[in-house]
Amino acid sequence: MDYKTYSTLERYMLSCAGDSAHDKDHIYRVLYTALEIAGTEAGVDMDVLVAACLLHDIGRPEQFQNPKLSHAMVGGDKAYDFLTGQGFSEEFAGRVRECIQAHSYRKDSPPQSVEGKILFDADKIDVSGAIGMARSLIYRGQVGEPIYTLLPDGSVSDGSGDESPSFFQEYKYKLEKLYSRFYTRRGAEIAGERREAAARFYESLLEEVRRPYETGADSLKKLLRE
Amino acid sequence: MDYKTYSTLERYMLSCAGDSAHDKDHIYRVLYTALEIAGTEAGVDMDVLVAACLLHDIGRPEQFQNPKLSHAMVGGDKAYDFLTGQGFSEEFAGRVRECIQAHSYRKDSPPQSVEGKILFDADKIDVSGAIGMARSLIYRGQVGEPIYTLLPDGSVSDGSGDESPSFFQEYKYKLEKLYSRFYTRRGAEIAGERREAAARFYESLLEEVRRPYETGADSLKKLLRE
Repeated sequence: MDYKTYSTLERYMLSCAGDSAHDKDHIYRVLYTALEIAGTEAGVDMDVLVAACLLHDIGRPEQFQNPKLSHAMVGGDKAYDFLTGQGFSEEFAGRVRECIQAHSYRKDSPPQSVEGKILFDADKIDVSGAIGMARSLIYRGQVGEPIYTLLPDGSVSDGSGDESPSFFQEYKYKLEKLYSRFYTRRGAEIAGERREAAARFYESLLEEVRRPYETGADSLKKLLRE
Repeated sequence: MDYKTYSTLERYMLSCAGDSAHDKDHIYRVLYTALEIAGTEAGVDMDVLVAACLLHDIGRPEQFQNPKLSHAMVGGDKAYDFLTGQGFSEEFAGRVRECIQAHSYRKDSPPQSVEGKILFDADKIDVSGAIGMARSLIYRGQVGEPIYTLLPDGSVSDGSGDESPSFFQEYKYKLEKLYSRFYTRRGAEIAGERREAAARFYESLLEEVRRPYETGADSLKKLLRE
């Protein structure tokens, strides 16, 4: 790929700016991490990989407006239309579309190509470790969801079995479990190195928020007169 | 204080709901932590303390609408008006107002009363440790600020000396430094126990986000043709 083509794709990516958990910083981290993983995989078409990384979240604004839409499906189609409109071949645009449409957790379309697998892993690495926790908290702020919910006995739920959305629910249902779902060896390694940072932060946060409820509600009850 | 009075104050607090970094969960954590600290301080008027804790952030919506306003000053006045309107004495309402107006970092009005010092410390404990990091990230999501900014050489700034707002700037300017600013012994102890969790999370996050930029930008440069 030449500089001019890269700049054209980059400009289009920037014009489709997402929310701040999926902002341009996320795109560059995914692209740079994908380049590292690509160095350990054989037969990678770097043009397809760079285009797919740059454009993988361009469907985010549509999903943010309408949560029923899949940003991967919308984004793949947007990328295909943009690339063919820019003079790329239908074959190239189709391969980029396939990578983008397979990068989310939807089980009906796992990545088939090596470029798709690398994009998937690079994107999931940005959900692992401390950065995964940070981005999830930023997202909670955007959609107005709490850190935790209370159990019927008034104590703080750790997120397991929760039905209503919260940061702890997201951790227990998704963030804690993603480490076994990588397609490349290097991707699994990078995420694995970050696992403990995420787990430690969750444990510290849970302990800190549980503490006041453990003594406070009783102290208050003793204080208040009928 | 009796249950009925507590419920009246609680209902008013809930009707002044703030953003999700200053939601009702924050209020209960501050109240319960304040009760723990109060058990280690002499001469605390528990009615003043409970009222001040419940109402300390009722000025948040006004500050969120107009960032030039101080939620502490607005909230103190709102609390005074509400309490006197509910039949509390002007003396009581004035003492609650003083606590609320002195609970923010504004240096021109440090807390004077023991109840004001306890509220200040309980509120700052909720900015310390992992919960402080989590709430700061949630706030970044609400106002659309990034986790970090890039230095002119393209590397990730650690936040020191940054002029534009980010999570790392907030950590370096405020979150990292708050541990020496407590008025009560118990408050300083609780915050001190959490300091390492915050520092470890910051270090992990900084390392994780720096990594892709360290190799990725060069790899990309080598890949792109003129």
